[in-house]
Amino acid sequence: MDGKSSSNTAGKPLRCRAAIARKAGEPLVIEEVIVAPPNPREVRIKITCTSLCHSDITLWKLKDPPAIFPRILGHEAVGVVESVGEGVHEVVEGDTVIPTFVSDCGECRDCLSEKSNLCTKFPFSISPWMRDETSRFTDINGETLYHFVYVSSFSEYTVVDIAHVTKIDPAIPANRACLLSCGVSTGVGAAWRTAKVEAGATVVIFGLGAIGLAVAEGARLCGAKRIIGIDVNQDKCEIGKKFGVTDFVNSRNIGDKTVSEIIIEMTDGGADYCFECVGLTSLVHEAYASTRKGWGKTVVVGLDDPSSMLTLSTFELLYSGKSLMGSFFGGLKPKTDINILGKRYMDKELQLDEFVTHMRWSLRR
Amino acid sequence: MDGKSSSNTAGKPLRCRAAIARKAGEPLVIEEVIVAPPNPREVRIKITCTSLCHSDITLWKLKDPPAIFPRILGHEAVGVVESVGEGVHEVVEGDTVIPTFVSDCGECRDCLSEKSNLCTKFPFSISPWMRDETSRFTDINGETLYHFVYVSSFSEYTVVDIAHVTKIDPAIPANRACLLSCGVSTGVGAAWRTAKVEAGATVVIFGLGAIGLAVAEGARLCGAKRIIGIDVNQDKCEIGKKFGVTDFVNSRNIGDKTVSEIIIEMTDGGADYCFECVGLTSLVHEAYASTRKGWGKTVVVGLDDPSSMLTLSTFELLYSGKSLMGSFFGGLKPKTDINILGKRYMDKELQLDEFVTHMRWSLRR
Ligand SMILES: [Zn+2]
Ligand SMILES: [Zn+2]
Ligand SMILES: [Zn+2]
Ligand SMILES: [Zn+2]
Repeated sequence: MDGKSSSNTAGKPLRCRAAIARKAGEPLVIEEVIVAPPNPREVRIKITCTSLCHSDITLWKLKDPPAIFPRILGHEAVGVVESVGEGVHEVVEGDTVIPTFVSDCGECRDCLSEKSNLCTKFPFSISPWMRDETSRFTDINGETLYHFVYVSSFSEYTVVDIAHVTKIDPAIPANRACLLSCGVSTGVGAAWRTAKVEAGATVVIFGLGAIGLAVAEGARLCGAKRIIGIDVNQDKCEIGKKFGVTDFVNSRNIGDKTVSEIIIEMTDGGADYCFECVGLTSLVHEAYASTRKGWGKTVVVGLDDPSSMLTLSTFELLYSGKSLMGSFFGGLKPKTDINILGKRYMDKELQLDEFVTHMRWSLRR
Repeated sequence: MDGKSSSNTAGKPLRCRAAIARKAGEPLVIEEVIVAPPNPREVRIKITCTSLCHSDITLWKLKDPPAIFPRILGHEAVGVVESVGEGVHEVVEGDTVIPTFVSDCGECRDCLSEKSNLCTKFPFSISPWMRDETSRFTDINGETLYHFVYVSSFSEYTVVDIAHVTKIDPAIPANRACLLSCGVSTGVGAAWRTAKVEAGATVVIFGLGAIGLAVAEGARLCGAKRIIGIDVNQDKCEIGKKFGVTDFVNSRNIGDKTVSEIIIEMTDGGADYCFECVGLTSLVHEAYASTRKGWGKTVVVGLDDPSSMLTLSTFELLYSGKSLMGSFFGGLKPKTDINILGKRYMDKELQLDEFVTHMRWSLRR
């Protein structure tokens, strides 16, 4: 079954395989599922590549809400439109598309503003449903399977609201395009859109996982002169180089000093931009302390514990000239920015190949 | 003794009157003092107008360091150069100048950067000394009198480092120019330079004291469409109108609601910019909560208790698209920005007259 023959199945429930999370932390089970046809303004997508991202694991392990089972996880993916629901004119059968957990309705005040990517019409949520609070998935016994962040890509077919679907250049290889739907976009965008790193800047990245390396790639594309990566894993020193990391600090090997002391020494006063990609509040504090007075910007990209709190001195905030902000999906607007990144990949500016080699366990079929 | 005849006194100690703070909280005493001639790179200034600013009162009341006595307070002022020390080529005798607690050395990385006003060579401090850690003031018994933030304007003559001196247009009336050395610049700059309020924006100001009204004036100059002032004093409703405040909220009259709930209702989702000008951490939290998701910016302008801490949810920071920053002297670089404001006053764009009428107890002689 491929994109071309898909019209035969339009309007009918589809039977396919999916990896179902039946219980918290238990292995995903490959089962047959029934995928209902798309409702109005929805798109049924044949997933051509999906990969595993950190938040899939978090939600797979988690026992309490927003965890809910049985569920189809997966949100980093690319696919081909199998059929469209009523009123969808943005894409047609056979189009290559990226589903994203961030929506871009094109109508609300946020989507119309250049300053925001937090759609008001369809706010982000770890919802178990489609936007109308129903599911398109059932197992072969008729039991409802829950959705995940409006994507649920660990299925051969999934249904996604058109607000969450971006049409992309089909020439981009699926296992590269896939990365643009979450991790790489989040990291590259944090440097490019959220922080607006400028040429010549000094950037520090706390944590060189997939997102941290993508921040490095984004900073490199913005022309940062110096990109300092910090990690507890010495292997990241070599890997980082491929993504533009110019200096590596193993935070296990700094003796009695704090990371911020090291960074302030290395940068003669502090970095222009610091990105926290691990998700630890203590590291946000270190990142903030590592930025230069006068203009240093700290960008929070990672989050491990949603209940964690940051504590800042008001005096320090007032007299330091520093700022602090979060970055959600790298500040990107999916429907415009993903295609800008796709083009930069095709133009051989943005590296995606190295991410595939180094970082991903891909579920490509 | 005026600017023209001042050369007679150059190089010699000068005897004049000053208001001395001899003990914490006790009335300032007008006494004769001896003002030494300026050392190299210093300027001796005849103060033509000085006014009382909130931090003078704070430091006058405070018993513990950085309070120190006997001291000559005062930092919002304008004057005329009486004489200059060796190596001063920026100003000459008779020039009208504004001394500022913020320095602008013109040489360090911050002063050379467009992004910072936090001079590295002469960092801000509530220092009791000149930059060389000596005083230019003694009383008639020979006792050393301490300086205050490198200005000490509650004296007929004072000595100020050239890095803290800005030459201005002498056509600006002294009691207007005076305001540009602290309060008005701090407030106007917070809207203009720190927040970069854009035309059409919605702005909320917590606290309509002198600084809050100056923020309103700055927001008005930036073209803000809606300027909401919040205060516990109902009189501020009328006063605010003169500075562009379009809506007033008396925070004593909002029943069970929080200020942020009121603001979110009034603005259909939150303000573009919120300025905290009272100095209460609880209001910083309300201000942050009052900004719109997606792009809301909170600017901390006031500070009451230097040990106060802000507590923010990391999750909220990450998923809200909001940012938080402090504003020190409105983000202004004294030597360029004060003259831009002075010109805007002469061009009848920036209002200073209303500040004199409404806000200031002036010590003009
Ligand atoms: Zn992800
Ligand atoms: Zn929207
Ligand atoms: Zn002041
Ligand atoms: Zn400087």
